[in-house]
Amino acid sequence: MSTSSDIDEREEGLAFRPKFDASGLVTCVATDAATGDVLMVAHMNEEALRNTIDSGEAWYFSRSRNALWRKGETSGQTQRVLEMRMDCDQDAVWLRVEQVGAACHTGRLSCFYRKVGKGEGGPVMSLVDAERLFDPKAVYKK
Amino acid sequence: MSTSSDIDEREEGLAFRPKFDASGLVTCVATDAATGDVLMVAHMNEEALRNTIDSGEAWYFSRSRNALWRKGETSGQTQRVLEMRMDCDQDAVWLRVEQVGAACHTGRLSCFYRKVGKGEGGPVMSLVDAERLFDPKAVYKK
Repeated sequence: MSTSSDIDEREEGLAFRPKFDASGLVTCVATDAATGDVLMVAHMNEEALRNTIDSGEAWYFSRSRNALWRKGETSGQTQRVLEMRMDCDQDAVWLRVEQVGAACHTGRLSCFYRKVGKGEGGPVMSLVDAERLFDPKAVYKK
Repeated sequence: MSTSSDIDEREEGLAFRPKFDASGLVTCVATDAATGDVLMVAHMNEEALRNTIDSGEAWYFSRSRNALWRKGETSGQTQRVLEMRMDCDQDAVWLRVEQVGAACHTGRLSCFYRKVGKGEGGPVMSLVDAERLFDPKAVYKK
């Protein structure tokens, strides 16, 4: 059980105490340091966090592949970390990065290439900043 | 089971089909529309998503309180949504917002008021942009 002094310490203290979820992960948001655009939302386990801090390059944990993953290890589209920040309850980190090429596995700079609007019959989406910077079929060969 | 055409449709299509997790939630990142700074990472259920799209103000689902929550309903610190975007696999949304006051329940503009660095004995944190814009004790009276 978390006491209020645990919470105070987690929120106000300077001790690095990531609050991992039941799967051992924290959420990570990477933004483009130049524009502030959100590039991707992913997850990190303890090892991904440590590797990122130690190397200055982004590492993640893939939930679909259940594996530690250095961003760009297959695609070459690496992320150099200019700054890492931790949120109030220490379950999310924010990376300001220099993205080499494109962050998204679909070949786009950002994973957020669709805008959501209000339509008559419910939400509607439209493409925005959806140009492909690489061909995923060529990059992720089986 | 997801077939590859399901995945293509989810990633390349314009149909709004949020991929909720086992708890019925998607992840949401709110950034300050003026600066690109990440204000907070939170979650939305189907109703929070719908209310946000319909009202143009951010609604979330609080996992700790297990309740739908209009951002600012207690604190007055509302978020006007200038743009909503959906990510490639439709399990995360990005809101570009105009924040009234401060996003963080600790009174800071952003939840990310601590920078993580590399120390000799492991990661170290330091305060950054940590000025309080409101007094949480006064705002969240029991």
